[in-house]
Amino acid sequence: MTDGWPRYDLYVITDATLIPGRTHPEIARAALEGGADAIQIRDKSSPAINLCRAVAEIQPQARKYGALLIVNDRVDVALVAGADGAHVGQQDLPAREARRRLPRPAILGVSAGSIEEAKKAARDGADYIGVGPVFSTGTKPDAGAPLGLETFSAIARAVGIPTVAIGGLNLDNVAAVIAAGAGGVAVVAAVVTADDMAAAARALKRRIVEARKSTHGT
Amino acid sequence: MTDGWPRYDLYVITDATLIPGRTHPEIARAALEGGADAIQIRDKSSPAINLCRAVAEIQPQARKYGALLIVNDRVDVALVAGADGAHVGQQDLPAREARRRLPRPAILGVSAGSIEEAKKAARDGADYIGVGPVFSTGTKPDAGAPLGLETFSAIARAVGIPTVAIGGLNLDNVAAVIAAGAGGVAVVAAVVTADDMAAAARALKRRIVEARKSTHGT
Repeated sequence: MTDGWPRYDLYVITDATLIPGRTHPEIARAALEGGADAIQIRDKSSPAINLCRAVAEIQPQARKYGALLIVNDRVDVALVAGADGAHVGQQDLPAREARRRLPRPAILGVSAGSIEEAKKAARDGADYIGVGPVFSTGTKPDAGAPLGLETFSAIARAVGIPTVAIGGLNLDNVAAVIAAGAGGVAVVAAVVTADDMAAAARALKRRIVEARKSTHGT
Repeated sequence: MTDGWPRYDLYVITDATLIPGRTHPEIARAALEGGADAIQIRDKSSPAINLCRAVAEIQPQARKYGALLIVNDRVDVALVAGADGAHVGQQDLPAREARRRLPRPAILGVSAGSIEEAKKAARDGADYIGVGPVFSTGTKPDAGAPLGLETFSAIARAVGIPTVAIGGLNLDNVAAVIAAGAGGVAVVAAVVTADDMAAAARALKRRIVEARKSTHGT
């Protein structure tokens, strides 16, 4: 994690179930090489000890690249393993309780699918909000109906903290979500299922950075 | 939870997957009516928010009966939901880290399958040790080979804290594990799959209390 305001431009979620044999550390390493600003370990089925080991293996690399390492759902694992923070969904621990257990400077991310949820997450202490699914996604079948760009943009504008767009994002649409106000772009399949994960991350990062420049008119 | 040294005589684990429709609160209620001294919510697949709700629903009843309410694996859920403690296995958070996050008077239980694991768990701050599988069990397919009564007894004698026997325990063998030095008996199927869960718990409790009396020569 770098000093100052964390960046979420390219936020890669290391789903290790999509391509057998691709482990959390392997995905994270490639994503970091490709320029990821944040890595989230998302794994609802592995034992906690394995998640702790994954954090321990990835954290030194994340620091080397100045990237954040976030653990999905398991606030206890994030705390024990020394990750930079945790991300909770609407079915995980309540954001307010997660924040209490994970005081700043730890990072707390919270998923939201509506303006109401996003505002509540911000009130409850989120540092950033994961907003989605923006587009339809095969990676998370329970993610609900896509919001579309317009609703995403309304949510992003309704809160005063960064929003990370998630759901069906790839090289063809990341520029649009940045233009719509996203503080960053979270991807799973776009990196994890790529033949060359580092190259896929690098291409996404470049597109995101370019989109931000043209959005800001610089 | 009662004042003084907690009792673990009958320790019921609320596996809600064995009999469809039997929820954690329903199993816990029956177990408490039957005299359970401790309830453990064990659920590796439900979202954390559901576990928190189960704790919230069961905790008032557990207090009414002077019983402990323990959450398996999720130290964060135990903390946030206000359970009496957590139980970690060898694949969960390391016991020492769990203890650090869950200071006394919270209860920390740790699973062990050998004298070495049991001694380490005690050093790492466990309040009791779950020792098993004593007999073969169909409830936890990954539980390993049964220890048998003799090895169980050696483990129970090797540590200075209560050991709770687990694995294949039922009305026919609970007296033997108490005689072998168990501080308590943990059951899953023996209660959860019974037609009348409260009656099953009551019969187990009676057998355990009788066995303890005759073991102590009173």
